[in-house]
Amino acid sequence: MIKKVINLKEKFSKFHELWSPKVIAELNDYQIKIVRIKGEFTWHTHTDTDELFFVIEGKMGIEFPDHSVELNKGEMIVVSKGIEHKPFSEYGCKVMIIEPGGVSNTGDDVNSNLTYENDVWI
Amino acid sequence: MIKKVINLKEKFSKFHELWSPKVIAELNDYQIKIVRIKGEFTWHTHTDTDELFFVIEGKMGIEFPDHSVELNKGEMIVVSKGIEHKPFSEYGCKVMIIEPGGVSNTGDDVNSNLTYENDVWI
Repeated sequence: MIKKVINLKEKFSKFHELWSPKVIAELNDYQIKIVRIKGEFTWHTHTDTDELFFVIEGKMGIEFPDHSVELNKGEMIVVSKGIEHKPFSEYGCKVMIIEPGGVSNTGDDVNSNLTYENDVWI
Repeated sequence: MIKKVINLKEKFSKFHELWSPKVIAELNDYQIKIVRIKGEFTWHTHTDTDELFFVIEGKMGIEFPDHSVELNKGEMIVVSKGIEHKPFSEYGCKVMIIEPGGVSNTGDDVNSNLTYENDVWI
């Protein structure tokens, strides 16, 4: 069986939509997703899982109810389950997300117009 | 609760040992580890889990029984559970590993002198 090498730059070149996480790899029941973000996302919570954000290019921030953080290229953060958060990026950012498969991008904000379908591989 | 931003470059600056994966983040029951590698590792298999390698800097390869792959900066691969493999790097490489917590770096090669302790955070 030939193992497939996944090139991040090549994967990002394949889409330009914002806030639409694409799956690039699966690891047991976890998925590695990449997403382009710009502007403000919606406030939401993942009640059942932690979520990892890793900045590949650009700069992003995450607002929490009582503070916010800034993430630059090469920086990551784990948002614990149950913690309300809102990602944003003023100038645009390429982000890698790690979380279990089947997690909705807008979490408990099920009626958001930013809710994107799951399991879209690229 | 203030969420902690994890800076990869800063984490790598804190150790220089080879083949000694350090934990930098935990995501549910999964861990994000970073490791410096150079030379050849040992042939081994993780019987219960897939393992993801993501090259942060430099170049590495992975030998499988019937072929080998080369991974450059920005490239990743998922080694499926049960697949024997041997990582190597001629000139040295900084690598991020994603896998469940508690996984031994040498897998079923339990008597290897390259076996490194688990849960060493940096």
